[in-house]
This record gives sequence, C-alpha cells and structure tokens, in this order.
Amino acid sequence: MVKAVLSAVLVLAVISSTIAKYIPKTGKRIPQTLSRGWGDQLIWAQTYEEALYWSRSRNKPLMVIFHLEDCPHSQALKKVFSENNEIQKTLDEDFVVLNLMYETTDKHLSPDGQYVPRILFVDPSMTVRADINGRYSNRMYAYETGDISLLITNMQTAKKLLKSEL
Amino acid sequence: MVKAVLSAVLVLAVISSTIAKYIPKTGKRIPQTLSRGWGDQLIWAQTYEEALYWSRSRNKPLMVIFHLEDCPHSQALKKVFSENNEIQKTLDEDFVVLNLMYETTDKHLSPDGQYVPRILFVDPSMTVRADINGRYSNRMYAYETGDISLLITNMQTAKKLLKSEL
Repeated sequence: MVKAVLSAVLVLAVISSTIAKYIPKTGKRIPQTLSRGWGDQLIWAQTYEEALYWSRSRNKPLMVIFHLEDCPHSQALKKVFSENNEIQKTLDEDFVVLNLMYETTDKHLSPDGQYVPRILFVDPSMTVRADINGRYSNRMYAYETGDISLLITNMQTAKKLLKSEL
Repeated sequence: MVKAVLSAVLVLAVISSTIAKYIPKTGKRIPQTLSRGWGDQLIWAQTYEEALYWSRSRNKPLMVIFHLEDCPHSQALKKVFSENNEIQKTLDEDFVVLNLMYETTDKHLSPDGQYVPRILFVDPSMTVRADINGRYSNRMYAYETGDISLLITNMQTAKKLLKSEL
C-alpha cells in the first residue's frame, strides 16, 4: 500500500515537472545567448540605448558590431575575433560591447551605409567615432579576418576618450 | 625520444587551448541569455526594431515585457510567467516576444509612464495596443502574479489583429 502511494506520488511529480517545462513541438532548443558567439565571457549590452547608458555611466568607449548569421564574412570575422585573447581581454576590461543583427534607427551608426560586418566605436560623450575606420574606402567600417591587428590599434585609439583630448 | 616529442606536443596543445579561451580575472561566467529567465524555449527578439520587423513580416502580435533584475515584482511575475505552459506555448506559436531592461526611445511603449514590470502588446500594423491593459488604474500595464489569467485573456485579445477587425 505504502509502495503504491509512493509510486503515485512519483508519477504525479514526474507529470507536474513535465507540465512545468514547456517544450516546443520541434524539440528542445538551446537558449540563445546575447554574445551570439562574439565572446561568451563578455558582458553584452542588449540594446543601443542600454549600451549608451553603460558607456556614459562607466566612462568607457562602446564597440558596436553589426553582423548577420548567414553572412560568411561576419562568421569568419567572428571566429578570429572571439578566439583573440587580446581583443577579448581589452573589451572585457575597457569597453562596453554590443552586437546587433538589426539596424538601429540612429543614422550615426551607418556613416557610409548599412552593411555587415561593420564595427563602430562610440565615445562615452555619445559621439560616434566616424574617424576610427578600417582599410576599405568603400566600406570604411568593415573588417576582414586579416585586419585584426588594425582593429586592435583602433581599439587603442577609441580608449583615448574624446574629452581627455580637449 | 618519441615520448618526449609527444609530451612537448601535448604541452603546446594545452598552452594553445589556454590562450584560445579568454577567462575573466573574476572567473568563468555563464553566458547571458536573451530570455533572461522569461522562457528559455522561446525565440526572443533582441531589440524593439528587430521585434517590429518580425511582427510585421510574420503577421504576429508582439509582446514587450519591461522588467528589472533587482525588482522583486518583476522576479515574482517572471517565475509564474516562465512556468505557465499555456503562456509559453501561446507565445511560442502565435507571438513575437521581446523582454527589455532598458527603456526604448519610443514613447508609445510607456503610455502611462516607465515602470516595471510592464507588458505592452503591439499589433503587426505597428500600433501599440494601449487598449489592452491590466487591472491597476494607476499603472495600467502592470501585472502581478495573481493576474496571470487576465494576462492570458489579454493575449487572446492581442491575437485578434487590428486589421482583421476593420
């Protein structure tokens, strides 16, 4: 009798735990991360508004990465970017980071158009650093996998805050 | 000799794998998720722009949740919300979902002020459904843990799209 009651309790427990967790028809999904593979150990802002707030309040420059999951150039850059220890450490300690797959309504973030991958720096004074760019004159904020050292140099430039230059 | 070479290779492999993965000084972090605990199985939009785009292109209403990690009302609502199978299933199948911890620049999302927790519905026609509200006259878009059935009713109302009512 006790055994039967225990079994019933167990069955109920299993049912309720099944009810508690919704599983989509297509099967269980891996929760999406905010990093989207650009650096799982970094603390990513979710939106541009949030990133600007963090940048101002912490007095740290902001890096904004525009990318797409189905763009091979974005994927290739993401791989070297996420595996580069110097980039990851510098971003973690000295920057606010945001990666976006959709454009914002702020035109300052697309000085020469909307394309991916594209990396913009924003000063804590909320000025988009259009002066910090890559090596391509037709897509000034694009970086390729071979441009990592230029990107690191540009990060150093972004760290010299505008107001300290006045 | 072969053994020594193998050892050296092993040591190098260990070193390079250490270099490859950046670990913050404060220790390894669990990657942040876009769900932030409001439903790990749902596919969350990252930004309002993205959510509006999904809503229009899929012709599904959008639910926007404003919340804060250090707000006990938000946390309590999140618990019952994420564990409610009906809410999770309906959202997964019939809605676009977005949860935000920072306000957007769009004033339509704060018809009676900025507070948390706050839930707004947006029609695929990009109209904020200010007519769909909770039970508190001073904070019309607030929901408490006891208001889950009202929230489900409101979700059903949001599913009746505005243009189909014309």
